[in-house]
Amino acid sequence: MLNLQADVAELTEQLVNVASVSGNEQVLADAVQRSLELSPWLEVTRISNTVIARTNLGRDQRVILAGHLDTVPPANNQSAVRVPAGVALPTGAAAKGEAIFGLGSCDMKAGVAVALHAAATIKEPVVDVTYVFYECEEVEGARNGLTLVSNAQPELLQANVAVLLEPSNAAIEAGCQGTLRARVTAHGVRAHSARSWRGSNAIHSLTGALTTLNNYSADVVLVDGLEYREGLNAVAVSGGIAGNVIPDEASLVVNYRYAPSVSAQQAQQRITDLFADYAVEILDNEQGALPGLTNPALAKLIELVDGKIAAKFGWTDVARFAKLGIPAVNLGPGDPQLAHSADEHVLVADIEHTSALITEWLTK
Amino acid sequence: MLNLQADVAELTEQLVNVASVSGNEQVLADAVQRSLELSPWLEVTRISNTVIARTNLGRDQRVILAGHLDTVPPANNQSAVRVPAGVALPTGAAAKGEAIFGLGSCDMKAGVAVALHAAATIKEPVVDVTYVFYECEEVEGARNGLTLVSNAQPELLQANVAVLLEPSNAAIEAGCQGTLRARVTAHGVRAHSARSWRGSNAIHSLTGALTTLNNYSADVVLVDGLEYREGLNAVAVSGGIAGNVIPDEASLVVNYRYAPSVSAQQAQQRITDLFADYAVEILDNEQGALPGLTNPALAKLIELVDGKIAAKFGWTDVARFAKLGIPAVNLGPGDPQLAHSADEHVLVADIEHTSALITEWLTK
Repeated sequence: MLNLQADVAELTEQLVNVASVSGNEQVLADAVQRSLELSPWLEVTRISNTVIARTNLGRDQRVILAGHLDTVPPANNQSAVRVPAGVALPTGAAAKGEAIFGLGSCDMKAGVAVALHAAATIKEPVVDVTYVFYECEEVEGARNGLTLVSNAQPELLQANVAVLLEPSNAAIEAGCQGTLRARVTAHGVRAHSARSWRGSNAIHSLTGALTTLNNYSADVVLVDGLEYREGLNAVAVSGGIAGNVIPDEASLVVNYRYAPSVSAQQAQQRITDLFADYAVEILDNEQGALPGLTNPALAKLIELVDGKIAAKFGWTDVARFAKLGIPAVNLGPGDPQLAHSADEHVLVADIEHTSALITEWLTK
Repeated sequence: MLNLQADVAELTEQLVNVASVSGNEQVLADAVQRSLELSPWLEVTRISNTVIARTNLGRDQRVILAGHLDTVPPANNQSAVRVPAGVALPTGAAAKGEAIFGLGSCDMKAGVAVALHAAATIKEPVVDVTYVFYECEEVEGARNGLTLVSNAQPELLQANVAVLLEPSNAAIEAGCQGTLRARVTAHGVRAHSARSWRGSNAIHSLTGALTTLNNYSADVVLVDGLEYREGLNAVAVSGGIAGNVIPDEASLVVNYRYAPSVSAQQAQQRITDLFADYAVEILDNEQGALPGLTNPALAKLIELVDGKIAAKFGWTDVARFAKLGIPAVNLGPGDPQLAHSADEHVLVADIEHTSALITEWLTK
């Protein structure tokens, strides 16, 4: 059992000390479920290893607070270690203040602690709240708890706005960019390299595609006052048969990161147009999410963070909520640059600050 | 035992019917050795599975006739099949006249038959002759019978000129081009592809090298009246870490085929100069062989082929003789394009024509 009334830093330590690598969230999900069921104002639902707790106060607005329970595999950092300010770990790792080190501390058990604490202590929020603690965020999308719930009981995810408590240094990261990957293939004619003029070299034929990438000027797109910076890059190249053969096939994999104001279809069209001289195969294409900052349910939150709002470049679960028609932002304790690192940690002050901010949002 | 007195087409059939995939030449080498030992005018030496037979008539000139005993692995064509003109095999394969099909028929048991027949029937050639039947031509150079003999007993390979009876449509293929392979690597800075401007894309940085390859104008070099056509080609390209990472390394493997008048050192300098903006690693570099057609020992042979002389573009064992200071040419029955194919075959007329030509060269 977890003590959700404990202060949020201590609760973070409790959560880190229950291992929950993706696919192995059951023990933690059980503890979360039983602890939430102690609060009679919450309606608790369990779907696989995702736990959902809802208030039903008949408020005009409903907001979602969401966090994933899973972590990446450990890097010799399974246990929580609380380290005073100015003290370094035996590994040499040091934080900028009093901090909790350990697997998942930053990504994102500190955020989960903030949401659990709010659920267990705020009996009468000014908006109805749906708390979502979900499984398998760190692995393929088909296993993601949000996907499972939106397929099984989509009504549980209805809300006016969602806040994902992913590490963002307690600032709002709004929207997210789309991401498309495509294979761009050149074809040629195979020949012995001693008589290369009889063939047509597919690797040489990639020159045009690479020149296109080199000359590409990435757009900077303004949405809701936020700057989204696009990018078009080769992330892989391959070709070749043997040391004495002119190859008849060579290909690039390109990754297009596009602004949330661009649709998936528009993104695909841009790529097929840019590489019209090649065979283009779309490998995957996930549309981004608009920041949705004009939504009234977010207005108060924006005030509370004191204007600390940035565009999100990477693709995140914010886009899953966008697909369900729910504006979403990231807002959580911890530095996102520390996620997945062996020195992962979160500042105690950062957890407490975020908790105060969320409490104020839900109660004032 | 082989019947070396048989006509050369029949002898070719006998040779095809003794399996001798590279590394398994012992049975064939034994048969060749015993058969040659029946001719008292030949001094026969055995080194591993290479058999050398020499006349010692005190002539002014000594020539080498050489052929390899090994074949590539079978392609369901282990046995010799003699097919009359105008008849197709059950596989649909057809020749341009009466032909012998089967593994090694073209590459190069027909040539070996011509040399064995000459050794066993020409008792008093006008030049001294060293017949060389060697192992492991189809595999790495360290196992090649010519390498073994030149290390163990180099004096056995002393001669004024060498003729390799490799398939060349009974024409002279003179010299051979050099071949160099180099890895050309671009370095960059790794970054997340959602924030690509923080990195430097090594795949994109290959554009310059590919443009160099595309713009490269290959030299046509005249040596001894023969045109050698050079070539510079990418034969492999690789790079990429993950679908969301800007790669910090990408590389091409280029293959430079250079004229026999260019030294290995000059070739290396050209490549390092061409790709001065990149890290260049030389993977291998085998100098070619000058055609040596001005050598008096070849003059009569050139007359006999009626001017059918072509430059050799691929690298062959001719270069091994060149390294030993012996001018060498390819001249043998069979179409080199058929080598290593499942439909490999040799025309009976081609074998007989080459045999007559060699006999005339050695006796008139």
